[in-house]
Amino acid sequence: MIRVGILGATGYTALELIRILIRHSEVEIGALTTRQSGRPAASSVHPSLAGKLDLPLEDLSPEQVIERCDCVFSCLPHAASAEVVKVLVDAGRRVIDFSADYRLNDAEVYQTWYGETHPDPERLGRVPYGLPELFASQISQAPLVANPGCYPTAVVLALAPLLAARLIHREGIILDAKTGVSGAGRTPKMVTIFPECNESIMPYNVGQHRHTPEIDQLLGQLAGAPVQAIFTPHLAPMDRGILTTAYTLPVGDTTETAAADALRDFYAEQPFVTVVDTLPATKHVSGTNHCHLAVRKVRDRLLVFSCIDNLLKGASGAAVQNFNWMFGFPEATALI
Amino acid sequence: MIRVGILGATGYTALELIRILIRHSEVEIGALTTRQSGRPAASSVHPSLAGKLDLPLEDLSPEQVIERCDCVFSCLPHAASAEVVKVLVDAGRRVIDFSADYRLNDAEVYQTWYGETHPDPERLGRVPYGLPELFASQISQAPLVANPGCYPTAVVLALAPLLAARLIHREGIILDAKTGVSGAGRTPKMVTIFPECNESIMPYNVGQHRHTPEIDQLLGQLAGAPVQAIFTPHLAPMDRGILTTAYTLPVGDTTETAAADALRDFYAEQPFVTVVDTLPATKHVSGTNHCHLAVRKVRDRLLVFSCIDNLLKGASGAAVQNFNWMFGFPEATALI
Amino acid sequence: MIRVGILGATGYTALELIRILIRHSEVEIGALTTRQSGRPAASSVHPSLAGKLDLPLEDLSPEQVIERCDCVFSCLPHAASAEVVKVLVDAGRRVIDFSADYRLNDAEVYQTWYGETHPDPERLGRVPYGLPELFASQISQAPLVANPGCYPTAVVLALAPLLAARLIHREGIILDAKTGVSGAGRTPKMVTIFPECNESIMPYNVGQHRHTPEIDQLLGQLAGAPVQAIFTPHLAPMDRGILTTAYTLPVGDTTETAAADALRDFYAEQPFVTVVDTLPATKHVSGTNHCHLAVRKVRDRLLVFSCIDNLLKGASGAAVQNFNWMFGFPEATALI
Amino acid sequence: MIRVGILGATGYTALELIRILIRHSEVEIGALTTRQSGRPAASSVHPSLAGKLDLPLEDLSPEQVIERCDCVFSCLPHAASAEVVKVLVDAGRRVIDFSADYRLNDAEVYQTWYGETHPDPERLGRVPYGLPELFASQISQAPLVANPGCYPTAVVLALAPLLAARLIHREGIILDAKTGVSGAGRTPKMVTIFPECNESIMPYNVGQHRHTPEIDQLLGQLAGAPVQAIFTPHLAPMDRGILTTAYTLPVGDTTETAAADALRDFYAEQPFVTVVDTLPATKHVSGTNHCHLAVRKVRDRLLVFSCIDNLLKGASGAAVQNFNWMFGFPEATALI
Repeated sequence: MIRVGILGATGYTALELIRILIRHSEVEIGALTTRQSGRPAASSVHPSLAGKLDLPLEDLSPEQVIERCDCVFSCLPHAASAEVVKVLVDAGRRVIDFSADYRLNDAEVYQTWYGETHPDPERLGRVPYGLPELFASQISQAPLVANPGCYPTAVVLALAPLLAARLIHREGIILDAKTGVSGAGRTPKMVTIFPECNESIMPYNVGQHRHTPEIDQLLGQLAGAPVQAIFTPHLAPMDRGILTTAYTLPVGDTTETAAADALRDFYAEQPFVTVVDTLPATKHVSGTNHCHLAVRKVRDRLLVFSCIDNLLKGASGAAVQNFNWMFGFPEATALI
Repeated sequence: MIRVGILGATGYTALELIRILIRHSEVEIGALTTRQSGRPAASSVHPSLAGKLDLPLEDLSPEQVIERCDCVFSCLPHAASAEVVKVLVDAGRRVIDFSADYRLNDAEVYQTWYGETHPDPERLGRVPYGLPELFASQISQAPLVANPGCYPTAVVLALAPLLAARLIHREGIILDAKTGVSGAGRTPKMVTIFPECNESIMPYNVGQHRHTPEIDQLLGQLAGAPVQAIFTPHLAPMDRGILTTAYTLPVGDTTETAAADALRDFYAEQPFVTVVDTLPATKHVSGTNHCHLAVRKVRDRLLVFSCIDNLLKGASGAAVQNFNWMFGFPEATALI
Repeated sequence: MIRVGILGATGYTALELIRILIRHSEVEIGALTTRQSGRPAASSVHPSLAGKLDLPLEDLSPEQVIERCDCVFSCLPHAASAEVVKVLVDAGRRVIDFSADYRLNDAEVYQTWYGETHPDPERLGRVPYGLPELFASQISQAPLVANPGCYPTAVVLALAPLLAARLIHREGIILDAKTGVSGAGRTPKMVTIFPECNESIMPYNVGQHRHTPEIDQLLGQLAGAPVQAIFTPHLAPMDRGILTTAYTLPVGDTTETAAADALRDFYAEQPFVTVVDTLPATKHVSGTNHCHLAVRKVRDRLLVFSCIDNLLKGASGAAVQNFNWMFGFPEATALI
Repeated sequence: MIRVGILGATGYTALELIRILIRHSEVEIGALTTRQSGRPAASSVHPSLAGKLDLPLEDLSPEQVIERCDCVFSCLPHAASAEVVKVLVDAGRRVIDFSADYRLNDAEVYQTWYGETHPDPERLGRVPYGLPELFASQISQAPLVANPGCYPTAVVLALAPLLAARLIHREGIILDAKTGVSGAGRTPKMVTIFPECNESIMPYNVGQHRHTPEIDQLLGQLAGAPVQAIFTPHLAPMDRGILTTAYTLPVGDTTETAAADALRDFYAEQPFVTVVDTLPATKHVSGTNHCHLAVRKVRDRLLVFSCIDNLLKGASGAAVQNFNWMFGFPEATALI
């Protein structure tokens, strides 16, 4: 039985994580933290946990967390997360970090996009990126794993095999992404209240979204040369789901079939990535840890569509998938 | 040309009001107020006004408003509204007040439900309730009109003719109401962010909603004796619309047809209330100033369904309807 | 390993059932049937099964189903269901019937509400109603179980303990129910296309809904005397969820607390029914087999709120809960 | 007073057209047609017209329409529309055709994309494309106007001024478009029922959408050379609205500001096109005849965002705008 803790357990990714962990036969939840005082019951913070989990959220020190947990999931904000994570890792705890703090290899890039000096720059470049479809062997050994961003997950699963096999060019990649509103978090803001975003679709953070350098880094790594994709996120009136429509330039005469076959081969042994024949929809993967991919050739472009649930394969599902690799459990435990 | 002003022009009812007034051939908008500084453009506060209205929102004193306007719509919060409204009315300006301040006749009831001493108790009881279907003659003469609450509008239009004609009992009235989220206003709160209220329906303020005394007062007035209805509001995952399902006890052998005919007769000359044969839906009146009513007998009860757009017939449409009566314009001007 | 079959596997309840059964460690899916020819892959009928289930839907005879399955879930329409179910049960297969065919005890009532002569009237009255919270001992022994209707589930879980304990009167019960659109099934109809029901709430089948006699029968059974509730369903713009707002007359001075305590005691050992302190929302139980209940006293009425997921606790979750009882597995297997 | 008729008045565009025409002071609706028999009341086909329009839908011959109407709006399907339109125009009636029949200049292109021999090929190339922002002078004189497709409207308004001024290249244009579900029409299909498309976003008709040749033709006309854009439509879970995200290659060092200024200058006198500073959202134009445009430079690309209401500026609003030009009324009559 692995005793796990969740730091910053008030948001949507924490709730999804708890829901999965309750189903996990090898896990005991030992700590849920919050900066709120008063030890609120989990079910008062997350009403859907009523009758399912009888634990409080507590304002715990890192030392208390270390004492209670073998493994810690951090849902803290960037910068705040690394401050605690480094203490936990130094004390020998294994950690899965939901923040962006350990995803980028370069502290300067981090500072440019996140506006803060990195709190733990020495570890950068040695923390595996938590996409088991690409990095399972590193993840299984790692004390600390950087859980991927939701958009990079959708994008990288779609394009990694094609870039690696040189079936598409690394130049001219355009990523038009659409997400549900849960991606914006649980803190009330005018832009996310229902009457503002219901019955509407809109672009946001154009040219400025913090997942941009993460996408560039991963795609560049796979292409073996720098990538500068045009990444444009949009907010769609739905709770969850990410659809990425990737417009790429095929190398030579790469056909739709060749590209789809390459994806199918690459993911043949992967339980959570499926290449579908019909056009995918976010609903088909909603509530699951799956990614659906499809390819279409339109005129001179190869389009790759990628759908995930932003809170599951894009966050908490992936985190448990990483956890399973780290602790030697079957990869799909609690994720079916 | 009537010069009008809108106090507290940042919310949803103010936006709808502006949209209607732009279409009104006899109106010139002279002032839009806000407590925000910096004179923000109307289109920066309400992006849908871009290209339609070139006016700032200003932090104006009552005196400035008096100077610029013949008629003022107050969208200020309760208590704050009456403080300004009394100054405007005393200065000879005509006012339509969206707040609850002048809707109740009794300052004590006001204090019980709103938790504040009424700022202008002397006027209570002399301000007409702005439902022209019932009180047009008073409205047309009044310096000040209390614009009705959204729920009371839906409820009173449904039941007034039946209570007045003694076709239903005043006892045992149950009002199960459903509203869209715009009714909760534009200030961000956790309960109204999209991922909390989308894909969900829930009761709220059960037994405590402030429209309760307003409903009781109006229904009691029509019944000629006290009414204590059970009023239960629910939040539905849609922008706008109110559906009220009223469960009533028919007097004697009142049939479905008799009740429907009574409603039809009562509203025969009214442009904005229609009794429909099929079951109504909020969508059928969304974006309009109309109210659709329908009657069904189920076992021993007479059910009356009532649909309005909460921001229009439930707020800003009604306000312009009142305005048209007050200034002698055809009732439907700018409301078709 | 129990080999199960699903008859009529193209709809929403069948999809949810498959999703649960895939997680069930003691189940092997042996047959999925459809009247469509061509043996379509499950993932072509239900795209969300891509990569999860590699089985065709087949046009099988009852004999073929009998050969392949130990237990059969019938998602066939009423009347059509009993025609097949009786063959399966006579052949010694255990069956969970999603249709209404075995829910009512009286063939005449069935004929009145469903407009058809009952195909298997001899069995009526001997088939347990599949609500394990009330009838677990009968269910565990039964060859055939009538899976409950979604609305009756929400209503009966809310009122059964109060009627049984004589805390509320059996007269004057008003049930205002709201459901998501998945309850209307997967066959395209104008009333359920998105632009008709999105951004709208509406009553439907008022006084005519076929769950009415089922509700009356169950409540009457618990009250020990006939019940004739006023049941009014509404369609809300969401995929799933049922909220029932029950207006009841308390016996004597039954308080809110006494009623809530009675519910809590009654369900103390039940894993899937929770009495909550705050007002419930359908979202809090969406995607789960749980029912959340809450009680409020408003003036002279006792209001009981009940939330379930119509496709899970209201259909497929309950079916697996029944299955677990019938085959001796822990009640919550595959349902957490 | 112009007597107008609407052919095929059962769908969503017809409903929006009726709503606008009811507000038009110079119009009298003389005929609404349908192939349904029984002369159904407009309010039984469109419940939102109850209390607003007292007219039946009739199965009329072209001759009857000619007799009753000065101007006809055809909402008939392609091919069927031209068969009637040519008769009406030959009889001297002015016609605004919502179908695609007169939008393309080339009968062969029509046959390729619509799979039918064009019923009236002689007129092709002489019918103005009903985008008054570009072709007002031709429209005002024309007996017949081809009302534009919704997607082409959004795309062409965004790119026309930039192509005409050679600020962007005609090569490499990628159009990622998102629409609400009303664009799919009112005929029930499985893909548009609520539980299939709610809470989901998906691409559709990739590489095959019939608006593709219309977009190519218009953009090519403006660029003065062939254009072959990559056009990818997506279905978003909302009633209405189109957002097009256009990815273009700037010519030379065209800046964001230069492009925005070019758009602003081009539309300076246009009442219905506004260049906004903040990022646009479909909600900001929903229910209006407006188009909001915005420009952003991201790395080496110039992005142009365009929002319209697909049923208004994308269909019925544009039709009345064309009507106003054709009959010499102020362009914005009934459209504010």
